[in-house]
Amino acid sequence: MVAEARGRSAYDRETVLRTCVEVFNRRGYEATSMGMLAKELGISKAGIYHHVTSKEEILEVASDRALAGLEAARHRCESLEGTWSEKLAYLLRESVRLAIDDRPYVALLLRLRGNSPVELAALERRRELTRFLEDLMVRAQEAGEIRDDVDARLQARLQLGMVNSVVEWFVSGGATGVGELQDNVVQLVFRGIAA
Amino acid sequence: MVAEARGRSAYDRETVLRTCVEVFNRRGYEATSMGMLAKELGISKAGIYHHVTSKEEILEVASDRALAGLEAARHRCESLEGTWSEKLAYLLRESVRLAIDDRPYVALLLRLRGNSPVELAALERRRELTRFLEDLMVRAQEAGEIRDDVDARLQARLQLGMVNSVVEWFVSGGATGVGELQDNVVQLVFRGIAA
Repeated sequence: MVAEARGRSAYDRETVLRTCVEVFNRRGYEATSMGMLAKELGISKAGIYHHVTSKEEILEVASDRALAGLEAARHRCESLEGTWSEKLAYLLRESVRLAIDDRPYVALLLRLRGNSPVELAALERRRELTRFLEDLMVRAQEAGEIRDDVDARLQARLQLGMVNSVVEWFVSGGATGVGELQDNVVQLVFRGIAA
Repeated sequence: MVAEARGRSAYDRETVLRTCVEVFNRRGYEATSMGMLAKELGISKAGIYHHVTSKEEILEVASDRALAGLEAARHRCESLEGTWSEKLAYLLRESVRLAIDDRPYVALLLRLRGNSPVELAALERRRELTRFLEDLMVRAQEAGEIRDDVDARLQARLQLGMVNSVVEWFVSGGATGVGELQDNVVQLVFRGIAA
């Protein structure tokens, strides 16, 4: 009975989704077939179609998961009382947290190239988020909160590059916690490393 | 004659290599077949085998191209006279320049997951370069050149994430030149954005 319950829980929609996305990230979305996903899950092809109708549906649900989290953080950021710098720091911290919490979904989102309408729609939502961060940087600069000798939009892209990279290399459960990672990102962005 | 010469030059090994790598980056390495590469180049499958023996050979040559450039920069960095911070700034600038000059090759390198011996060997060389930057940061911190309240190795990873991201978004030939991009990276890393 225990084994049966375990078996069932291994095949709920959430587990199927996460496993499929991890396979996409490891082997490449285009190169992965529904047959390969079923094999990785140890279920039949019919079994996987019980949970999802197509590879593209998985991509859509997964990229929506990543984007919805980031968009919610953006909305909280907008309604935050404080300086532009405080809003920026909040958004950086939340983006780091989500990159770790939703890691497989964010990693998939970051690798989309726009090879289908679903991918193009996801990339457009991603661009909206990028523009929001860029505008935040421009406003902070106009308000004199950040240095005037840097390119605000370029700096926004560099910051995003830094934050997004954590999905590739951060070791969850290792010596360094997510809070310390967030602190290091905010310190680097605002103060740099110079003593 | 002109057309013929042009035709020939379009199929030299360098062009074949770069085009194949661009297709890998757009469609995913695993999902791309030699037939698809031949079609993109507008040549026959026999034609492509005149230049390269396999997909894996292209991957090996391309990742070696990216790594050799970075390793040469590392060696120049090691023999540089100056502080640890100066060495670090040099390495950051050179890494940015190479990310743009060798963009398709660096982009391919950054997407490797270790799905074959060739990929694993490339990833090991990449890890060596990461360790070199980490050690540079640790030494700079020990020498009191950088703040002691940051995690030197973590900061190195964040800096690499920032630099590597430029292959995804920097617009070559746009309003912002590579020199300005390099300046913004060094400014962000050493001084941060705070006014």
